[in-house]
Amino acid sequence: MAVGLRDLPPLHPVAGVRLGTAAAGIRKKERRDLVVIECAAGTRTAATFTKNRFCAAPVTVAREHLAQTAPRALLINTGFANAGTGTPGLQDAHACCAALAKQLGCADSEILPFSTGVIGERLPVDRIVAGLPACLSGLGESRWEEAAQGIMTTDTLPKGSSRQVRIGAQLVTVTGIAKGAGMIRPDMATMLAFVATDAAISQKALQACITEAVAKSFNRITVDGDTSTNDACVLLATGRAGNPAIDAPHGDAYVILAEAITAVFTELAQAIVRDAEGATKFITVEVRGGKSESDCLDVAYTIAHSPLVKTAFFASDPNWGRILAAIGRAPVASLDVNAVSVYLNEVRVVQNGALAPDYTEAKGFAVMRLPEIVIGVDLGAGSSLARIWTSDLSHDYVRINAEYRS
Amino acid sequence: MAVGLRDLPPLHPVAGVRLGTAAAGIRKKERRDLVVIECAAGTRTAATFTKNRFCAAPVTVAREHLAQTAPRALLINTGFANAGTGTPGLQDAHACCAALAKQLGCADSEILPFSTGVIGERLPVDRIVAGLPACLSGLGESRWEEAAQGIMTTDTLPKGSSRQVRIGAQLVTVTGIAKGAGMIRPDMATMLAFVATDAAISQKALQACITEAVAKSFNRITVDGDTSTNDACVLLATGRAGNPAIDAPHGDAYVILAEAITAVFTELAQAIVRDAEGATKFITVEVRGGKSESDCLDVAYTIAHSPLVKTAFFASDPNWGRILAAIGRAPVASLDVNAVSVYLNEVRVVQNGALAPDYTEAKGFAVMRLPEIVIGVDLGAGSSLARIWTSDLSHDYVRINAEYRS
Repeated sequence: MAVGLRDLPPLHPVAGVRLGTAAAGIRKKERRDLVVIECAAGTRTAATFTKNRFCAAPVTVAREHLAQTAPRALLINTGFANAGTGTPGLQDAHACCAALAKQLGCADSEILPFSTGVIGERLPVDRIVAGLPACLSGLGESRWEEAAQGIMTTDTLPKGSSRQVRIGAQLVTVTGIAKGAGMIRPDMATMLAFVATDAAISQKALQACITEAVAKSFNRITVDGDTSTNDACVLLATGRAGNPAIDAPHGDAYVILAEAITAVFTELAQAIVRDAEGATKFITVEVRGGKSESDCLDVAYTIAHSPLVKTAFFASDPNWGRILAAIGRAPVASLDVNAVSVYLNEVRVVQNGALAPDYTEAKGFAVMRLPEIVIGVDLGAGSSLARIWTSDLSHDYVRINAEYRS
Repeated sequence: MAVGLRDLPPLHPVAGVRLGTAAAGIRKKERRDLVVIECAAGTRTAATFTKNRFCAAPVTVAREHLAQTAPRALLINTGFANAGTGTPGLQDAHACCAALAKQLGCADSEILPFSTGVIGERLPVDRIVAGLPACLSGLGESRWEEAAQGIMTTDTLPKGSSRQVRIGAQLVTVTGIAKGAGMIRPDMATMLAFVATDAAISQKALQACITEAVAKSFNRITVDGDTSTNDACVLLATGRAGNPAIDAPHGDAYVILAEAITAVFTELAQAIVRDAEGATKFITVEVRGGKSESDCLDVAYTIAHSPLVKTAFFASDPNWGRILAAIGRAPVASLDVNAVSVYLNEVRVVQNGALAPDYTEAKGFAVMRLPEIVIGVDLGAGSSLARIWTSDLSHDYVRINAEYRS
């Protein structure tokens, strides 16, 4: 059950980006499982990858290629993650890149590979290579929706987001797709996001943009605290919009573009949480009044990762004792418990570290019945703020994660 | 279901310690819910308390009293935790101490209060005070088993451990009881442990002893990563054994005693994990080959707290990809993934960061069917070692924690 996740919004084409998909039978028959995203010459690319040291072969190869030259195409397969596969896995990733490069007439290093699916098994290179012609023959600028479907693994719905903004006289488009919710499913690793804009922007400013946008979106969601071996986020800028090039990470044009990109990233990140395994609640944890953003984040993540808080939300139980206990063990040295207030949506539950005088269980239960809930915490110590998104911990989370291989 | 937890072993009396219990009807009828542990004059006491900043009223009062004088009695109630109760909660804890002090003819500050149970509701002081005469009239040195039952809340079995060792010519006894598994159950906070020895030992050496023993036992277990507002561990030393007093935290006599105390603490700590909510597996995570113990612990806890690893163990699934992914995101800067090996009991699963050549899924499944499993990790970077204990994440964990108030 995806909480508040609707059908895909209109995904505007991005001039200079063409997408193609195929049902290559990589692990299952008759489902889109192979995607090529081709970008025009001159496209700038910025990317962030998993920090997990056990990263998958495609992550290693994509990092290498990105360090060498600007990419001309992204190659994404589902079914197998090509993680935990050692040297043969690296060879497989290289073989896939070489096959696509040959057909596009570019260098191997101009291809970035991405894989998602089962860990520890070899990639069926032959089936991937055999699927490439179908991807390439269908390349088109209006195929974002098909691509969103093509990168799904255990997602129940495709995830996409699109914005158009004016930079001076020019209309600039930002469109993106994403899949997965961290290591949401047994061996189905991976959060993948591919976002493109036709804005003209320098490499330096584009890098600043992705760093800023990821910090406010993909790095602010958590389902179970587990990161995957394959996580990757790519931001392409084709420069076809005709705007005066944005050279540096400041100024009006940069701010307008960065806000649009951050909005697309955030919508994609929230979609991942809404579609988290077994999720029945979409929870925003908003911690304010901290001495630093880092303090606020520490408190927010401690709440969001607490199995006791998460099971209470699954039960629609306004169990404020568990929230207080989580705040109390957060690694914030200067925390003053007597200054802490806690809200569930608009309902103040805790005031000055103790039960709020006007709180009633009836008010708490009324909030907890809703599918979308904000846990508001005021640390009463400063003016910093942090906001993250998470889901509850349900029977289905255990069922999905325990019974996958049985 | 408690994994491998048996009936209480014989709990040897400790000279100078008398225990009494009562069914005071604090929250439920006809169950032991009130315990007094009285100790002879001259008894030395060391204690550790929860580090959670939202600590319960009895923790605050016990800390205050302990700073003032040596305790003559511990007063433990189940049913209500007296946490999140503000100033009235502190008054209630003081009132209980005063009532017991009056009956024992000692100062209020010579009583240490402990509470466990529902958070956020007032303590029924009148029922506790009314139960005291029954506790005191039944005081005896052989009532450890009854006391172990009297401190249970959601525990399915009472937990106790006892050792006798020779220090020179003297037989020295160490006996203890414990309850709870961290914040194992909704509002049923609390891990409590009460251990006594008749050894003669200085305050300084006793403090060293509890610090050492807790570090190797209660600080090495984790069920869900949540700490409670009421956790407490008390070590009493009556000095009645007749051994030459142990003055300093070194030397043969100290080592013998410290080992016995650590053994009792460890057996109690493991019993708590064996009886963790919904546990079907008792898991030892043993990380060796680290550059420091701290590195080993960071890796061990990251594995033990991963919901994906825990659900895989519930499913008896040798899902080594999840273990690798957890190791890969542990906060150990110098981790070399190509040096890592992973074992399930005696079966080597991962070697040099990749699947071990001689590993088969059949071997993995054979281990995973067992109720007690060791996850062995060799970081291949040094000579340090750390060992912790945890449980799996089952349907029952979610059911117990979600449905408690429904």
